[in-house]
Amino acid sequence: ALEGPEDELQLLLEDYHASELAILFESIPLEAQKRIVHLLSVEIASQVISEMKAEAHPEDLLIDLPSEKRQEIVEELDYDDATDIISQLDKEDQHEILQDLDSEDAVHIRNLMTYAEDTAGGLMNTEVIKVDAAMTKKQAIDQIVLQSEEIEEFYTIYVVDHQDVLQGIVSLKDIIKAKSGVSIAQLVNTNFVYVKTDTDQEQVADLISQYNLTSIPVVDVNMKLMGRVTFDDVIDVLEEENTEDILKFSGVSEDEQLSGNWWDAVKSRLPWLILNLGTAFLASSVIRYFEPTVSKLVVLAGYMTIIAGMGGNAATQALAVTIRRITLSDLTDNQAYRTVLKELTVGLINGAVNGLIVCVFAYFYDDNLLLGLVIFIAMTGNLLIAGITGAGIPLFLKRVGVDPAIASSIIITTFTDVFGFLFLLGLASKLLL
Amino acid sequence: ALEGPEDELQLLLEDYHASELAILFESIPLEAQKRIVHLLSVEIASQVISEMKAEAHPEDLLIDLPSEKRQEIVEELDYDDATDIISQLDKEDQHEILQDLDSEDAVHIRNLMTYAEDTAGGLMNTEVIKVDAAMTKKQAIDQIVLQSEEIEEFYTIYVVDHQDVLQGIVSLKDIIKAKSGVSIAQLVNTNFVYVKTDTDQEQVADLISQYNLTSIPVVDVNMKLMGRVTFDDVIDVLEEENTEDILKFSGVSEDEQLSGNWWDAVKSRLPWLILNLGTAFLASSVIRYFEPTVSKLVVLAGYMTIIAGMGGNAATQALAVTIRRITLSDLTDNQAYRTVLKELTVGLINGAVNGLIVCVFAYFYDDNLLLGLVIFIAMTGNLLIAGITGAGIPLFLKRVGVDPAIASSIIITTFTDVFGFLFLLGLASKLLL
Repeated sequence: ALEGPEDELQLLLEDYHASELAILFESIPLEAQKRIVHLLSVEIASQVISEMKAEAHPEDLLIDLPSEKRQEIVEELDYDDATDIISQLDKEDQHEILQDLDSEDAVHIRNLMTYAEDTAGGLMNTEVIKVDAAMTKKQAIDQIVLQSEEIEEFYTIYVVDHQDVLQGIVSLKDIIKAKSGVSIAQLVNTNFVYVKTDTDQEQVADLISQYNLTSIPVVDVNMKLMGRVTFDDVIDVLEEENTEDILKFSGVSEDEQLSGNWWDAVKSRLPWLILNLGTAFLASSVIRYFEPTVSKLVVLAGYMTIIAGMGGNAATQALAVTIRRITLSDLTDNQAYRTVLKELTVGLINGAVNGLIVCVFAYFYDDNLLLGLVIFIAMTGNLLIAGITGAGIPLFLKRVGVDPAIASSIIITTFTDVFGFLFLLGLASKLLL
Repeated sequence: ALEGPEDELQLLLEDYHASELAILFESIPLEAQKRIVHLLSVEIASQVISEMKAEAHPEDLLIDLPSEKRQEIVEELDYDDATDIISQLDKEDQHEILQDLDSEDAVHIRNLMTYAEDTAGGLMNTEVIKVDAAMTKKQAIDQIVLQSEEIEEFYTIYVVDHQDVLQGIVSLKDIIKAKSGVSIAQLVNTNFVYVKTDTDQEQVADLISQYNLTSIPVVDVNMKLMGRVTFDDVIDVLEEENTEDILKFSGVSEDEQLSGNWWDAVKSRLPWLILNLGTAFLASSVIRYFEPTVSKLVVLAGYMTIIAGMGGNAATQALAVTIRRITLSDLTDNQAYRTVLKELTVGLINGAVNGLIVCVFAYFYDDNLLLGLVIFIAMTGNLLIAGITGAGIPLFLKRVGVDPAIASSIIITTFTDVFGFLFLLGLASKLLL
């Protein structure tokens, strides 16, 4: 239908929600996006553009539109969305868009562009519903109806004094339920959670999630109300942080764009691989040290990879559970201690079970019980090390104030490689030669 | 202060929000929890219990309280929270709690207990604000004020017919802004998103997140309104799904409790390790096949681990980026094709760079340029395989309708182990002996 006549296409488009069109836009060429935008109402077009993922580059679509259409769309966007999109453009294009705008809109957007992207200031929307504490119920409702012309959704009404200093919050429900003549000052809830403009977005997300808020007010150093961050921004932040976590865990730089090109991926991953190459040389130097042992008993070469590989996987398991636990809540000293103890126990048991299987194999296949025993001890010892390092290293990093996620599997598996080879080849050279 | 006299403790407790007390409760013994609960108002106590994580076992606290206190707290809980907590108890304790309750409350909770925990029915709260489409503005506002006595927070008002069949939604704002005398039927928005009671929680979360909803209505097969799921439940679901993703990715069973004991951890991880042991035997059989080569050129043993280890890490990188991309949005055939092509290119480049480093090392340290060239080719080839399998396997699984996350690093690294050994030892036996 994308190829059909305009009127058919227009009819078809009416069936879709803006967020569905945004998903469509993310997978079609710029020219097709432009053609569709011209068929949409300004309201829907602005919603589509604000819903598009940053990686689909809505700013390319925006700058490519005729200036009049573009102006209409930008004026329809929420200030925070407009800021996010415009700030992706180069200075010249930013200037071109901003000069066309109504001067009040332009001031708002220029102001928002001064905040760092990953702070409350960068996330917030400056359009809030606010009432003066001195107002009566009737005045407040009139004020809310008036302000809500501009604001699509609001969940909490902010109460300020005459200098815009935040006094507290009140819900529309409480205002409606109040007797007439009651002043807002009598209804205001002054026990509320707020953030500063420079609060990190992860902390904003944690607060909204912990207190189940639909929105959180953002204030400056003088408690002046600057804007609000809503729960839907936080859902996006959570997804973003979770992407970063899984990437860091896998030795990928946290700012690699998932849909970036090969060159971005090489730049993001090569440094980690070269770090891993260094640690691989370390593990391989253990093997080199025991080369005489390997050359006398070459069957060890096959078992080496089994012991090291199992250690790496067991360490990754312990690491994933521990890092995820640290992410979701802080652990007390006692909990940290018990976590390491638990992982040590798990490593010991899983090591013994797997070690026994390989021991039995070595006994029957290589007809060498002593070799089997050496493998059993090496496997058990290595999975013990896997448990201790997999849980202990991220907990230690957290304790000393370093992001525990840098204990990626690359770092942890160095330990299991080195100890695996040391246990297996060291014991073999003592007991089997 | 936990040890001090009751009145001091009570004074101290007043400064804390229920969600902060819930975090405290998660780290103190049951006896201390009980002592504090007795000092809290029923309202705060019920909030604390509903905010406690499932792993902190709020049901143990509840069942341990005197029956009168318990009854007051349960009656104050939202039905969905009460259901979640009570359903963790054994049948006998469930019965004991339910028989003390007001019969209407008990019916609601028993009814909710019939839904699977990870569906919309299991997540939903049955308390909603609903108005009849036939009502006037005045009647509707009276109805909303009345219903809101019971319901702490509401964001959307549901419009039903006289048989409770959902007709649409309306916001409090729109009702207030409407002229008096207008009927709800004139204000209702019939273009809304809803879910069935058996809709999977992940899909509920996706819809709420995609459409930026504060709540989504839950209906039965006849479109009768059964309840609503709110955005704060979804934030919890997202955290839960993200935990499952990172666990599955690391070869941990997705239902392992992060704070479970060693026995739970062994049961969850041992099957994966034994699967990995099988794949490790496969990789090791390649080495066994080439044992004559290794025994003639024992220096290969040290390089083997470098090639295999680097392949495993490069594959994990490609896998993490691809799985995360699939989780966040569906890819078209064309995007899937370009993703594999990108990862193939990245593997080729990263392989060549790292291969060159090891080649230079082999030339100077082992004085063997031909060995260096064999390593260069093996490293490049293995990182190429890493890119193709790391991206291709999860994409293929997704295409055939299997959860791509089962392509955990355990599965993918089997390929890089086997191919790494094949490339290195195969080439070495042809070119170096």
